[in-house]
Amino acid sequence: MPAPLAWRLVSNNGPEVRAGIVVTGTELLGGQITDRNGPWLAERLGELGLEVAYLICVGDRPTDLAAALRFLADQGIGLIVTSGGLGPTADDLTAEVVAGLAGVELELDETMERQIAAILARLRGLARFDPEALRAANRKQALKPRGARALPPVGTAPGLVVPVDGGPTVIVLPGPPPELQAMWPAALATPAVRAILARTTPFESAQLRLFGLPESQIAATLQEVSAALDLTPLEITTCLRRAELVIDIRHRPGAEAIRDALIEQLRARHARYLFSTDGTSLDDQLAELLRGRRIGLAESCTGGLLAARLTERPGASDYVAGGVVAYSNRAKTTLLGVPAPLIEQHGAVSPEVARAMAEGARDRFSADVGAGITGVAGPGGGTDAKPVGYVCICVTTSDGAVRASEAVVPGNRAEIRDRSVTVAMHLLRRVLTDPA
Amino acid sequence: MPAPLAWRLVSNNGPEVRAGIVVTGTELLGGQITDRNGPWLAERLGELGLEVAYLICVGDRPTDLAAALRFLADQGIGLIVTSGGLGPTADDLTAEVVAGLAGVELELDETMERQIAAILARLRGLARFDPEALRAANRKQALKPRGARALPPVGTAPGLVVPVDGGPTVIVLPGPPPELQAMWPAALATPAVRAILARTTPFESAQLRLFGLPESQIAATLQEVSAALDLTPLEITTCLRRAELVIDIRHRPGAEAIRDALIEQLRARHARYLFSTDGTSLDDQLAELLRGRRIGLAESCTGGLLAARLTERPGASDYVAGGVVAYSNRAKTTLLGVPAPLIEQHGAVSPEVARAMAEGARDRFSADVGAGITGVAGPGGGTDAKPVGYVCICVTTSDGAVRASEAVVPGNRAEIRDRSVTVAMHLLRRVLTDPA
Repeated sequence: MPAPLAWRLVSNNGPEVRAGIVVTGTELLGGQITDRNGPWLAERLGELGLEVAYLICVGDRPTDLAAALRFLADQGIGLIVTSGGLGPTADDLTAEVVAGLAGVELELDETMERQIAAILARLRGLARFDPEALRAANRKQALKPRGARALPPVGTAPGLVVPVDGGPTVIVLPGPPPELQAMWPAALATPAVRAILARTTPFESAQLRLFGLPESQIAATLQEVSAALDLTPLEITTCLRRAELVIDIRHRPGAEAIRDALIEQLRARHARYLFSTDGTSLDDQLAELLRGRRIGLAESCTGGLLAARLTERPGASDYVAGGVVAYSNRAKTTLLGVPAPLIEQHGAVSPEVARAMAEGARDRFSADVGAGITGVAGPGGGTDAKPVGYVCICVTTSDGAVRASEAVVPGNRAEIRDRSVTVAMHLLRRVLTDPA
Repeated sequence: MPAPLAWRLVSNNGPEVRAGIVVTGTELLGGQITDRNGPWLAERLGELGLEVAYLICVGDRPTDLAAALRFLADQGIGLIVTSGGLGPTADDLTAEVVAGLAGVELELDETMERQIAAILARLRGLARFDPEALRAANRKQALKPRGARALPPVGTAPGLVVPVDGGPTVIVLPGPPPELQAMWPAALATPAVRAILARTTPFESAQLRLFGLPESQIAATLQEVSAALDLTPLEITTCLRRAELVIDIRHRPGAEAIRDALIEQLRARHARYLFSTDGTSLDDQLAELLRGRRIGLAESCTGGLLAARLTERPGASDYVAGGVVAYSNRAKTTLLGVPAPLIEQHGAVSPEVARAMAEGARDRFSADVGAGITGVAGPGGGTDAKPVGYVCICVTTSDGAVRASEAVVPGNRAEIRDRSVTVAMHLLRRVLTDPA
């Protein structure tokens, strides 16, 4: 095993506030579904300067949830965040259990009841269902522990902030990740949570992103740098995300100079791979670089993933003219104008065909920039010369710039497809920042 | 409060054995790294018939780990599995903390010490480290709580099975997922764990999937059914996944008749929405239904996501001819043959254009089936008549079958795009199973 790369933070800011996260849902304990809320909340709490001590997944059994909350309170946890169990069905019991922890009754919040009713009324298609069941579900979701602050629904379920007398403050959030994330700012703005945050010092953080450098190399670099520079005030974690190496640097206020010195060292050694030091993602950068241009796409093995990723952002229609997913040779020829003899001569997966696809896409969509991807996503279809993972990518512009990549991308089918998209986006970034 | 709607399992096979999982590692509480061991262990334990009550992530602080283990023991948990904290460094303290829980001393396992020494001797690159430090690390890893069974190392760290007198049995496994998984069979084979497994019965399970039915309605249905049918031997959980409602039914052997009666009731009431009772996903079913056919796709607001999803599976090239992502009107006209006057008259987002896109895709890709999606993914671009989320979808076949959907899809941009793909796939399923 490689040595873990974690420089632990040594806090000099007095006692920390410890936080605990409780994610509910029996389905999370079956192993088939992986919790996304726990890690998201842990990251947010960490940024705010809280120390996350426990992350607990618990089923929908109320006695288990109650025991977990009691345990965290007994450990002196100051802030508990729960997710899930706020829906309309009877196994959604979080509000009741948290009321039990606080030792207070549930009461109907009539404002909330009206808000939920208004939301349900806007949803079309519910008219054909039993109105009494809907009304009961609505009323259940509008119950809150006495003394709690309700957080207005983002979907249909409201959230809660429940201060426990002599104990922790509990933030109760819905389970669907988009709802939970959208409700988070409202939770932070409540007086009870602001009182806790007043006792913490947020971390400063910086994030570096590199593409093309192996993780072992960054480990060696950090070890080298630490011989000359005292890095102990920094907490550094590295991880691979979608084929990019992300370096997170966290520290308390006061360590900015050391942080900047480290970033300079990394820039000096790995300038070629470093593409972001300001937290922007590749997607952010491409959206900016494509402003005022139009791009056309031609995909084979990635099956539309590049088009889907580039159109994730609002306003993408300003610069994405369109794309063709050309699985068959015939589609490559008729829809993209790739000459059939070129495919015969070099094969559908070849640098030549990738280039012809890029040029075809640029032409057919009347675009300034074209990108073509063709490869073997597997698991079948590989040969000795063109194994599974062999992917050819080309980007061309109307100014005559051309950038190409021909590589064997590691991983299974899903990984090969996803990583190929990332490689294509980095090629695009290169061609748009440095057309030479 | 409405009457409870969660049917918990009432075992008739003697007391259930409940299990808890404790995953250690401060890096898991920072949010950047997601735990893989917890879900893997939960799935294995569930298959064996244990009920996983808690999954706890805890940092490398020994007092926190000790508190978590004590908590699980106090909850009557019969089997605890831990991962991580078995390495050679000083913050790897799991063995010591578990010995504390068991109230026994650590003692040196000399067989284990020799095994670890032999493994280290084979590792290259250790020569440059201090041999005395290596020996100390080696000895530390060979310590086990008195009365524990050591599990031979797969990497360099041994595992442990520690029976706690009057309390749970604790399986202590290393953190790296491949090592943990490789060591699992040896843990199951120990006498202490076999004694626990002798008291469990593996679960039977069934899964139903519905599309288009709100979660509140299924709650009402289950309540109704339970008035006539004793559902207590079943454990039923419902959840929404990618706009589909999934009902998981688990039970001990012997409750098959009740399970089947419930499934019949659900089928009788919601046949229109029920699309899977055998565990197959929509993606599985479409892959099967498209066999021997060829499909062409035309996407606007979903930007390639439908093509990407249909090509996730190996062998998709047999039935996915290709797709066009036509963001601009010009692309709709030139690449898909949608008549410009049709767009002018009805607007780019209209049932008429969705149908012309489907027919254009079928034609251009020489396919048997065509699908067209056009909509307002937002956040901008909505009008009173065509708000954000308004999506028109059409599926046509060369046999003349046509199915269309025109709806306001709820959610943010990403959700609208993802749900529109799901709606399109259900339309496809309908047209291919019931073309009338």
